[in-house]
Formats: sequence, structure tokens, C-alpha cells
Amino acid sequence: MAPQPRQETRPIITLTTDFGQQDGYVGSMKGVMMSICPTATVIDLSHEIPPQNLSAAAFVLYQAFSYYPPHTVHCVVVDPGVGSKRRAIAVRTSHGLFVGPDNGVFSLVFSTSGLNVFEAVTLTNSKYQLPAVSATFHGRDIFAPAAAHLAGGVPPGKFGPPAINLVRLDYGPSDENDLCRVIHIDHFGNLILDITVHDIENAEQATFSVGQTVIRSLSHTFADVKEGEFVAYAGSTWDHIEIAMRNGNAARELGVKLGDLVRVKRG
Amino acid sequence: MAPQPRQETRPIITLTTDFGQQDGYVGSMKGVMMSICPTATVIDLSHEIPPQNLSAAAFVLYQAFSYYPPHTVHCVVVDPGVGSKRRAIAVRTSHGLFVGPDNGVFSLVFSTSGLNVFEAVTLTNSKYQLPAVSATFHGRDIFAPAAAHLAGGVPPGKFGPPAINLVRLDYGPSDENDLCRVIHIDHFGNLILDITVHDIENAEQATFSVGQTVIRSLSHTFADVKEGEFVAYAGSTWDHIEIAMRNGNAARELGVKLGDLVRVKRG
Amino acid sequence: MAPQPRQETRPIITLTTDFGQQDGYVGSMKGVMMSICPTATVIDLSHEIPPQNLSAAAFVLYQAFSYYPPHTVHCVVVDPGVGSKRRAIAVRTSHGLFVGPDNGVFSLVFSTSGLNVFEAVTLTNSKYQLPAVSATFHGRDIFAPAAAHLAGGVPPGKFGPPAINLVRLDYGPSDENDLCRVIHIDHFGNLILDITVHDIENAEQATFSVGQTVIRSLSHTFADVKEGEFVAYAGSTWDHIEIAMRNGNAARELGVKLGDLVRVKRG
Repeated sequence: MAPQPRQETRPIITLTTDFGQQDGYVGSMKGVMMSICPTATVIDLSHEIPPQNLSAAAFVLYQAFSYYPPHTVHCVVVDPGVGSKRRAIAVRTSHGLFVGPDNGVFSLVFSTSGLNVFEAVTLTNSKYQLPAVSATFHGRDIFAPAAAHLAGGVPPGKFGPPAINLVRLDYGPSDENDLCRVIHIDHFGNLILDITVHDIENAEQATFSVGQTVIRSLSHTFADVKEGEFVAYAGSTWDHIEIAMRNGNAARELGVKLGDLVRVKRG
Repeated sequence: MAPQPRQETRPIITLTTDFGQQDGYVGSMKGVMMSICPTATVIDLSHEIPPQNLSAAAFVLYQAFSYYPPHTVHCVVVDPGVGSKRRAIAVRTSHGLFVGPDNGVFSLVFSTSGLNVFEAVTLTNSKYQLPAVSATFHGRDIFAPAAAHLAGGVPPGKFGPPAINLVRLDYGPSDENDLCRVIHIDHFGNLILDITVHDIENAEQATFSVGQTVIRSLSHTFADVKEGEFVAYAGSTWDHIEIAMRNGNAARELGVKLGDLVRVKRG
Repeated sequence: MAPQPRQETRPIITLTTDFGQQDGYVGSMKGVMMSICPTATVIDLSHEIPPQNLSAAAFVLYQAFSYYPPHTVHCVVVDPGVGSKRRAIAVRTSHGLFVGPDNGVFSLVFSTSGLNVFEAVTLTNSKYQLPAVSATFHGRDIFAPAAAHLAGGVPPGKFGPPAINLVRLDYGPSDENDLCRVIHIDHFGNLILDITVHDIENAEQATFSVGQTVIRSLSHTFADVKEGEFVAYAGSTWDHIEIAMRNGNAARELGVKLGDLVRVKRG
């Protein structure tokens, strides 16, 4: 059993998977966590990540992690390489501990301005795994125990040797100066781009083109445009620029999918 | 930080949104809550409210709130007016505190027989908001902090000036004596009407007409009718009358949608 | 109110229903639980059980229960017989307490090797129910209070008389030696069969036939086959054999549904 943390830092574990909510997979992981660290609070970020979609998982974590206390353990299990030689890792940073497969799912978080990565280890110590590790469900057998032991105060160094050269997500080329990329489409159909308002000068005068549709002004808010009109604005996630349709679904109306390119015309 | 409540009233916050569960929006709100009130238990009522559907959110809260301890804080973020001049409010009642936009989403709750509304305030005090308030995500920047501070014991009066003339939901006219309205359709396709068994005399002899279909008897339970038959009965939500199809989906079979009218013929 | 348990066994309740997540039904049950046993942690296993699908609910619980501490209370409300004469039960075992309708939903769990069933009772004592019991929502009015009182330490014997001859799920005949049955299809479209690797000799040389498709080898893991190929292997749930398509949806590609038969050719 893990040593218990001091009372003032109640252990918190967040959980992000592509398991959906119809099976007992997520429930099994929580059972493992409760058994190892009974005082932990486990919070779901999302289990509706599209199957094996690393980019979506990376973005969800990037949206949420900084609002949690710095001692929070964030466990992500979107793991197309389960059973292959991909590493299982734990990473300690200045704002949170991160547990999951080494497949790039933490790339966006680790690129956050001001975040320091202190330590990364490979989860090889079987002492912190379930007694029998299955070939297909490392979420339950490796990642859940690791997250719970970390939340309970076991130092990362106990889990295995240092992990260097962590995998980073490759979003593909968008090297032209006037192109940016859709890195997330949210529940409302809003498009989140890979650039922030700080990346372009005179952002409020820029225009964005999706096919034949030109989105003209960087409006302040939805209320500035009429229903059914498109609007670009500084979104709520780290000031990334978003494109939305007021009271509508921009992704559907514009026929845009994850990874598509958007043309920027600077003001 | 909010003062901590006495141990015997463990802080509880419920959360109802139209954010879905695929993004990091709900997770961000919970992170804010955990950071401000670490001892709180946060419970999801629903994040599957259809986008911007105030009526559905109002009903879900109305179904559940009275089963929670009276000190519970209920936070609702279904907020089509975010960024406009609509007020953000907190309301203290005899059974629960309520936090959300002033758009009528609490109307059904506040009309509950026996519930007393003691105090309503506008959430204007920036001390109880995140340092930077975005134009599009007041759930994270205003409502989550307010709910957490309330749960932690900050009195409503600290958040801002009194809010008077709260907005009420308008379900549209149904003033004819023999018409009632579908105010909710649940996961099973059951239709919940805006009248209770106490609103009509001899309820057990009434009939309900949807198009050409007449639902005859106010049966006691599903088991009283055959598979595939329709049945009207006193439902589990405050005795509102419901129409269901045994082992079927009444809304789909009858082609009924939210807000449709149903003709009542009294017994 | 229930007596409080000792601090080292923090009460845990898991919840499995077919209520979906759009209504206030699950939230109502949690409110009841929080009111009766304020120290309990309530964990969702799934609320996405297909309506009235006992087999799916039974499997989800079977996947997860053994990973929880033995004092955990597992509450299942998939209840096509609500309002009929079916019994409401609580069952104490060597690994968990189980609360729900007596309709076979616990059959798979109770057949787990090594699990001992100590005691089963009928939930008839109105002292441990809500004051008014509705005809249609026993989840809120009978099962949630029972689960919370059990979690808080009330002994099963207080709830009512012993329940004997519990209902068992009938998966239908598959008595031919070379047939097995699909007892679960998961979120990824993987087929879980009713046999384990321990049930057949030389399992690694067996083949499985679905229609015209022959799945040849009992591979170790997904990584052993190419994308789009089918694979059979010992799954993560009690070593039941699963059939999957690498990076695809086996159920959809093979046109298989719950309860279908698969032909086994032993090695």
C-alpha cells in the first residue's frame, strides 16, 4: 500500500480514456485506484475520446490540467500500441503528474508556456503493477496502479529507470506562413486552431478562410454576431483561436474535420 | 480560499451542463472547484442536456434536487446568453443553493410546492471569479468558483448585490382547459406532461390523446399493460403524469417532441 | 441514519443502470445515497447499459467488481420487472455486497470461481426505503436507500427475510460441444465469448468460425496481427476468449450481435 499523503493535499486523480462508458473498463480502473489509494478522489475528464485518437486526448488534457491543484495525477489511457514495445511512463512537472503510454498524448501539455518537466520514468517495476498484467488492458494493470501509488505519495523514481526522448505528437506539416490547423472540434462543433491570438499581429483584423467561406472579424463573443453567422475569436483554451457558428455547428456547416487546414489572412 | 464548513456537512456540489463529455470543459470546472474547495464532493447530474435546451436542464434539476441534503450547491451551466448582458446569479432556498445564468433554468425548481426562496444575488464580485474571465466560458471562470466558494461556506451576500425579477421559463400558451404540454422526454422515450395527478379530478378515469392515439386508462404501472401498449400514470417526478409504451419508446412511436401538446379528456 | 463505518473502510458504492445520462434519474439516486451515507464515495460503473439488457449489465459488473475492496456495495438497477412481483434483494458475498432486482443480473458474478455467497435477503423493511415508494422508480426509492444503508454498516438481515432460489440469467442453449456464445460486445466492437482459455485444451491452436470467416490463431495480442485482420486471444476479463479486429470493429465487420453463436474447432 502507498504511504498516505498529508491531509491538506487530498489525493486527486483525473482519468481520460477512449473506453466509452458502456463497459466495465473504466470501473475496473477506478476499483484498482480505490483499493490502492482509498483516500483519492477520482475525476473523469473524458471517456468519449474517439477510439485511439491521440490528438483529441492530448487536447482535452491541455484544456483542463492547469485548473487542478499541482499535486494532481493525470492518467491518460488512449493506447493504440498496447501490447507492443511502446513505453509506459510517469512524468513529474511543475503542475501535475502524468501517467500513460509514451505515444505523444502529453505533447500539448508539455509544450505549455511556463510548465517545467522535472522527471520522466518508465513504469517497469512490477511491485507497482497488478500481480498479473494482461496483454490488452494496461489501463487497469499498469496505469491505474501507477496513478494510485503516485497519488498516495510514492516518488516517481521508484517506478523504473528514467525515460528520455519522449514521443511527441506530429500534427503534420503546416509550414506555410498563412496556414493553420484544426487541432480540436468540440461538442458544439466549434473549431479550435493551433494558433493563439498572441501568434498573429493585429489578430482582431485577421480573416480566416475555410473553402469559400471567409470569416471576417475576430469578434469578442457570440453575442456580437447574428444567429447562423460564423465568428472567430480568442477561445477559452489558452487563447487559441476558435471558429464557431452562433447557435449552430461550425464543423458540420463548413464540412471541416480534425487536422484540416485553415487559411489566415493577417490584418 | 473559502472557510471550511463543519465536518458534519460535507460540501456537495451538483453539476448540470450541455457540454457533453468529449471535451475538457466539465473537467476544467471540476478542477476549479477542487482547487477552491478541496473537501467538496462534485456529482454530475447530467452533461447530456441538448445544447442550449433550458427546458431540459430545468427538468433534470427539478427531478433530482430535493433528494440532496439542503446544504447542497446545484450549479447549472446551460447558457445560450454567455457573453451578453444576462446576469449570473446565486440563489439560496430552503432546500439547496443554486448557481447559474439568470435565464429561467431554475424556474421549475423555484415553483416547487413548499420551497422558499430566501435570497438571490448577482455574481459580480471579481474576488470570487477566476483572475481572467473569458468571454465564452463563464462555467469555468464565474460559476464554478462561485459554486465552490458557496459550498465552502461563503455567504451569498458576499458575491454581489441582490438580484430581483429573476427570469422565468416560458413554456408557451396552453391555456385551453383540455390541453397539456410535454415538458420532458426521457432516455426511455417516456413523455412527461406539465400536469400532475393532483391537477385533474378522477385522474384514473382521464384519457390522453396524441394525434389519433388515445391512451385510455391511468394505469398503476407498466406491468398493467401488454408489451407495445401505451400507458399513462403518475410518474416518479413530483407526480407529473407520464405517457409510456411498455418495453418501447413512446416519443418515437407517437412522433412527439418536446413542447408538443396533448389533449386531456377528464373522466 | 446508518451507523458510520470505521474510517479505514471508507464506504464505496458502485452504480450500474440503463438510465442513460440525460435525465435526473441517476442524480436522484446519488442524492438519496449522499443523504443517508454522507461519507460514501459513489462510483459509476455504467449508465449506458442498453435499456433492459440484463446480460450487458451482468457482464459489466463481472468485469469490474473484483477490483474493488471487499466491503464495496454494488448497486445495479436494470429492472424490466419494476412494479411487478419480482423481488428486490441484497446479497452479501466474500467479495462485495450486491443490491438490485432479483432478475439474474448478478448471475455471472455469483458464478465466479472462488466467490462465496454468504447471505441473500429480500428488501421488504420499509424502514430502509424512502417514505413514499413509487411504482416505477425503485432505483431511487428502494435500491439507493438499501445500498447507502448497507454501505453505512446496517447488516443485511435488517432489510428483510432470506431470499432463496435467486433467479439466474438464461443465455439459451449452446449445448453442442463445438459452439460457444457471444455474451458481450464492447465499445470497440470486440466480441467476448462465454468460454475461457482454460475451458479448451490447446487453446492456442483452436480456430473460431463466424459465418464464413475463420479466425485462425489464438494470438498473444493485437500487435501480432496486421491492421484489419481478426484475432482471437485470452481477454482481460477473467481470461474469457475475445475476438477483435485490429484497429477495427469486429462486431460490425462480422455482423455479429449479442447472443450469437461461434463455432470452435479445437487444436
